[in-house]
This record gives sequence, C-alpha cells and structure tokens, in this order.
Amino acid sequence: MEALKNKIIREGEAIGTEIVKVDGFLNHQIDVAFVEELGREFKARFSGEEVTKVLTVEASGILVAAMAAREFGYVPLVFAKKTAPSTMNGEFYGADVRSFTKGTVSNIRVAKKYLNPGDRVLIIDDFLAHGEAAVGLVSLVEQAGASVVGIGAVIEKEFQGGSRRLKDQGYRVESLAVIREIRDGAISFK
Amino acid sequence: MEALKNKIIREGEAIGTEIVKVDGFLNHQIDVAFVEELGREFKARFSGEEVTKVLTVEASGILVAAMAAREFGYVPLVFAKKTAPSTMNGEFYGADVRSFTKGTVSNIRVAKKYLNPGDRVLIIDDFLAHGEAAVGLVSLVEQAGASVVGIGAVIEKEFQGGSRRLKDQGYRVESLAVIREIRDGAISFK
Repeated sequence: MEALKNKIIREGEAIGTEIVKVDGFLNHQIDVAFVEELGREFKARFSGEEVTKVLTVEASGILVAAMAAREFGYVPLVFAKKTAPSTMNGEFYGADVRSFTKGTVSNIRVAKKYLNPGDRVLIIDDFLAHGEAAVGLVSLVEQAGASVVGIGAVIEKEFQGGSRRLKDQGYRVESLAVIREIRDGAISFK
Repeated sequence: MEALKNKIIREGEAIGTEIVKVDGFLNHQIDVAFVEELGREFKARFSGEEVTKVLTVEASGILVAAMAAREFGYVPLVFAKKTAPSTMNGEFYGADVRSFTKGTVSNIRVAKKYLNPGDRVLIIDDFLAHGEAAVGLVSLVEQAGASVVGIGAVIEKEFQGGSRRLKDQGYRVESLAVIREIRDGAISFK
C-alpha cells in the first residue's frame, strides 16, 4: 500500500535495526481518517472471504481492527485483554505472548462467549514482527473451535520472521507494508 | 441517550453495587456501528466547541474517542499509555491514576510533542467512575499548557463522584448515560 509506505517514510522513525516507531499516526497519536483507509485496504485484501468476527489484542490494534470490522459489514470486533480485570469472571481462552519490544510475557485472554465454533475470524494487528501476538490470537481462535480466515497486519517486519512462521503453518497473511530492512535510520520496503 | 441506556439494560451486567459490565458491546466485544453513534452523540453534546485534539487513555476508550475525533473533522486522537514501552523515548507528561476496579496505580503518559499549548482538547473515555482517569488526563493537558474543552464519558457512575469532582473544578462533563444506582442486579439511571 503505497500511501502507507510513504507515510512511514515521512512520519516514521527508524531505531537501530529492529524498531520502527509510528507514534505520529498509529501507535500514540492516531490519524483516524488514515486508519479508515487501512480498514478499506484490509477489506480489499480479504475480499470474497466470509468473516463473522474480527479479533485483535489491546491496545494499538483496536482502531484498525474496528475499521476492518466495519468494512466487513460491521461484524463484531473482539479484542483480547492483556491483563485480567477483576470484572472478567467466567471462563476464558488464554495464550502466552512474549513482547520482544517490552521484554515481557502477557497472558492474553478472550472470554469464551465471544468466540464460538463456526466463527470465521479475521485477525488484525498493527505490527507483525516475530509473530508472537498473532500466534497467540490464532491459538485463542482454535481453542474456540472457530476458523482463522487470515491474519492482517498494518506493518510487517519481514526480517523478524513472524509472517514466515504463520505461512508455514498454513495461514494466509496480508501485510499492508512489508519492511525488509532497517539500517542507518533508513527503512527499506519489499 | 436512550439507545445507550436500553443497550446497557439489555446487554449489560450489574455486579454488586459498584460495577456494570458492558463487555458485550464496548469493553471486550465491540459493536462498532453503535460506537459510531456514540461518537455522533459526543459531537452533538459539544457542538459549537472548537476542538483541535481528542485525548483518551488505552485501551477501551480508544475506539469511542476515535469516533468522536472523526465527528470533529478528523482532528488527531492521542491516547495516553499506561506502560512506558521501550520505544517511548524523549520527554513526556505523566500522571498517576488509580484503578479502583483493578486495584492498581498506573502512571499514564503522553509524549510532549503530541500535546501543545494552544490545543483545545476534548477528553473522552468509556467510563467515568471516581474520576481518577479523567483527572489524570486533565493534568496531562494542563502540563502541556493546553485547554480542556470538556470531558465526555460513555457511562457515568454518578454515585462514585467523579463527575462532581470534575465539575467542582470548573470542567464541563457530558456523560451519555448516567447511572444513579446499582442494586440487586438492577441498574437505575438518572
């Protein structure tokens, strides 16, 4: 998606060889009109697919996932939680997810009643790096006996291998911008 | 907002005398079309006000705040972070926020560059309870030398005093549904 690559070049920040910061339009300050465009692009990439639910994980993925859910006819959006609030009673599906950026492990959770057998789930997240979050979300869907339609990421860091890992397991992955390398403050795309 | 009260009655869950769970359409599974309506209602409540930025705190507030930002002409949405990711370098404004529900204190943060003197900021959140999050967000705005246009909450629990606390400090508060009391599994609205 050229508009996204251009925005990353113009407004993103490359840090070291591993990190791209897009706090100006996606991860801290959000350009809502642009995220609506990302939602339309996910619809185009997965057009023809039947989707009954969109799944993401808090927090940065929520808006882009919502905009995708809208494009698929306002199907319900479910976001997995990273902490268990005291109001989360009853049964849930859980999966451990390591964050390389934050150096932490979270147990992400979805209440069982929001994922059902027969659901056709599109997983959407802002970043696809090592694939930890996506693999965790896939696990939640499969624990529910539902199907994964595919995994959509706004920005993929190809060199961290998450996309390969998911594709090797048979999942369809669509990333709106694929970064091949980050070096000397420069970002090169595939 | 009658549609919201009806939805809370139909789909919400009263727990004890303090908690209303709306995990079915706002806090875990999200009804995106309905949240768009909430955004339009915030625009109606604050119509005539000049708003240059919408501010919320991750995670549940993000979508409703985004839908409000859209109604105000796609002004930037900024969400305060509850943890400091390793990619958050540089200077930020911070405020301590206690969560009565979770029994924790978080230091919410906004990078200084995303709040500026001259900004007219509309604060939006899903719940207004004791007012801890809203008071923290107000503090971030004022540390930046920006102005608070008002505070908009989807659901206010009036009996927890947050709205009174903010109004006593001179802020305009608009809540789309005001809960007077939760008792014996029943929710009564103002």
